[in-house]
Amino acid sequence: MPDVRDEVVVSYPEWVYDVVRFGDRYTSDEDRMRLAIELARQNVLRNTGGPFGAAIFERATGALLSVGVNSVVRLNNSTLHAEMVAIMTAERRLGSFTLAGAPAVEYELVSSCDPCAMCLGAVLWSGVRRLVSGADRDDATALNFEEGPVFPQSYDYLQARGVAIRRGVLRQDAAGVLDLYRRRGGPIYNA
Amino acid sequence: MPDVRDEVVVSYPEWVYDVVRFGDRYTSDEDRMRLAIELARQNVLRNTGGPFGAAIFERATGALLSVGVNSVVRLNNSTLHAEMVAIMTAERRLGSFTLAGAPAVEYELVSSCDPCAMCLGAVLWSGVRRLVSGADRDDATALNFEEGPVFPQSYDYLQARGVAIRRGVLRQDAAGVLDLYRRRGGPIYNA
Repeated sequence: MPDVRDEVVVSYPEWVYDVVRFGDRYTSDEDRMRLAIELARQNVLRNTGGPFGAAIFERATGALLSVGVNSVVRLNNSTLHAEMVAIMTAERRLGSFTLAGAPAVEYELVSSCDPCAMCLGAVLWSGVRRLVSGADRDDATALNFEEGPVFPQSYDYLQARGVAIRRGVLRQDAAGVLDLYRRRGGPIYNA
Repeated sequence: MPDVRDEVVVSYPEWVYDVVRFGDRYTSDEDRMRLAIELARQNVLRNTGGPFGAAIFERATGALLSVGVNSVVRLNNSTLHAEMVAIMTAERRLGSFTLAGAPAVEYELVSSCDPCAMCLGAVLWSGVRRLVSGADRDDATALNFEEGPVFPQSYDYLQARGVAIRRGVLRQDAAGVLDLYRRRGGPIYNA
């Protein structure tokens, strides 16, 4: 019979509901990125995880569908990077295994940092049509957060399959949260 | 306040408890692969997901820690490939975000098929010290299951970080489950 030890529950830290209003509209890339960065910053300040935040928006309207914060340490789960949490909860909200299910509505994922290899793959499978990132992989590796096997052709691969990509949006602000985490001595859990 | 719509629950299909005995020992690579393939086959026959299975073992003793079956359609979650489910539940059982936490015990992940880009990244973050796969990426792409941005240097990257890799174990048997899925007309959910 089922063993409760095999049930994995992924949920937001409670502060998310104080900081985020789902359905609010974020019209520009910069507005959307400011939310992703604020999620990363709050995750550091409230000691709920690594310095990474992400959010998924309706591409045209900017309506906020879901968010994610790094939850590796909080939930004892190495797969729960911010992007993964945002994708899982977006699909949970839609009740669908793909965000490309309603072709009239396109979704995009905005991440406070370039995605790692796992998350870049997950972006492809999620059905989002655009990826926007803030801090550069070099900003993360300077903190000893590794990105894994991501190569220039990894981005080419996604673009060839219809995922538009824009990197470096508010990069300095996004990298500032990485620096905040370093100064506070947060754990580097995948070193 | 927390919204139940944001709670993502990952669990096995119930038949897993009829097929699998956790803690049993699987001594050879082939024994371990036969379990991964059987999980993939049962997932197809019982209509609970795509034709992929995985399991995590103590490397030295072969004691079974966790399993995974593709759960994308069943749980409406594009990230729930077999390897991801195996990693998440292994960490849940250990109560740790890394399987490398107790250096005296090494773990390995055995997958019925070469991992996609997402899962290959997840293997790296999981802390398993070895990856064993069965069917080749070419077997999967022949079925229109895409692997994503995985390149020869992706494997090199993992090996350089101490993850041993052996591919092609019982490849024909593993590919047979992909063919079974095709003959039954199962959905290709990431095409």
